Amino acid sequence: MKKEFKGSEMLSPVPAVMASLGEGDEANIITIAWTGIINSKPPMTYVSIRKSRHSHDILMKTGEFVINLTTEALAEKADWCGVKSGRDFDKWKETGLTKEPASVVKCPMIAESPVNLECRVVEVKELGSHDMFMAEIVKVHVDEDIIDDDGHFDVVGAGLVAYIHGHYYGIKRKPLGRFGFSVMKAKTKKRLSKEAHEKRVENNRRKRANNK
Amino acid sequence: MKKEFKGSEMLSPVPAVMASLGEGDEANIITIAWTGIINSKPPMTYVSIRKSRHSHDILMKTGEFVINLTTEALAEKADWCGVKSGRDFDKWKETGLTKEPASVVKCPMIAESPVNLECRVVEVKELGSHDMFMAEIVKVHVDEDIIDDDGHFDVVGAGLVAYIHGHYYGIKRKPLGRFGFSVMKAKTKKRLSKEAHEKRVENNRRKRANNK
Repeated sequence: MKKEFKGSEMLSPVPAVMASLGEGDEANIITIAWTGIINSKPPMTYVSIRKSRHSHDILMKTGEFVINLTTEALAEKADWCGVKSGRDFDKWKETGLTKEPASVVKCPMIAESPVNLECRVVEVKELGSHDMFMAEIVKVHVDEDIIDDDGHFDVVGAGLVAYIHGHYYGIKRKPLGRFGFSVMKAKTKKRLSKEAHEKRVENNRRKRANNK
Repeated sequence: MKKEFKGSEMLSPVPAVMASLGEGDEANIITIAWTGIINSKPPMTYVSIRKSRHSHDILMKTGEFVINLTTEALAEKADWCGVKSGRDFDKWKETGLTKEPASVVKCPMIAESPVNLECRVVEVKELGSHDMFMAEIVKVHVDEDIIDDDGHFDVVGAGLVAYIHGHYYGIKRKPLGRFGFSVMKAKTKKRLSKEAHEKRVENNRRKRANNK
């Protein structure tokens, strides 16, 4: 049995990213759950921000931001950047997060984040409580620690964070399946599972060798 | 050290919801990761869909859809609904998912999903590969099994699914913290943790009583 409620933001899980924006001393960090992918070609995303937020003013002026993925290790700093205002604090100084130069946009990326997406705003839409900054993703940076020898990304291995109904959660390590697993032949499943096993063994061997 | 790549859809985690849409025999299900919250007041969401998809045609005609949250138990069916086309299959029949009447929109909800969001399209934006259907969330339905006696939702308890770089993942059960936990006083943290413990004890007692 279900209970009915008025419309609300019950979509879950959603991301909990840190957006960095602004240039020089004005550079700020704002934590955002109202984000997502809106287009594939060209790759596009958005961030929805209240007009009253300090980062809203910055973004209206510069039209550039970086999405920095949040990990479990960064969750407390991300929360702090979501609660406090850049009007009152230098969030880089207070959190100890490090500015890293982006390659296309002028605002800094967060060095500690394993994945950074450089974004350029193409349109601002006023929707009510929030303005939606629709943007093209112009560059992506990925930490080499989560790229294996074949160039595959192990993004989950970085320990990403989801935001669900007012709380932050980690992601389970083992996938339920890859896109298309419901129609995958048993033979293909077996081959992929064998390859994944061999890769784990090889990665562990490499790690042990590096630690010597 | 980081490696640089051209822009791509590396935002993670994102949702992996099943959108139901269309009326009567035309009712279809499409699995969507390109979704998110874009506004709080009024509550608004979007789904981005390729023009070539069967559900795109339906949505252009009806302007209504329901977002049905995906659980670990529903992951394989969700994947199947994302791979196959409603032009070739009656996805309700093939997956065994059950139509449940919505209260405002004319398309059905998925009964097996623990949370359903009824949505009405307010604008369609052509972005390139995808059209973005921006919509108001007009009603929400929540399974009573994930509502406790105080009216709080335990959405994570339903076993939600995230989509990360081509794979589906479950969410860890224990939160890293609630919004604002980085600035919470030790006293408040202790009180909340004590209350959560008492609630778990009480819920377990109730479950045991119900099972007798």
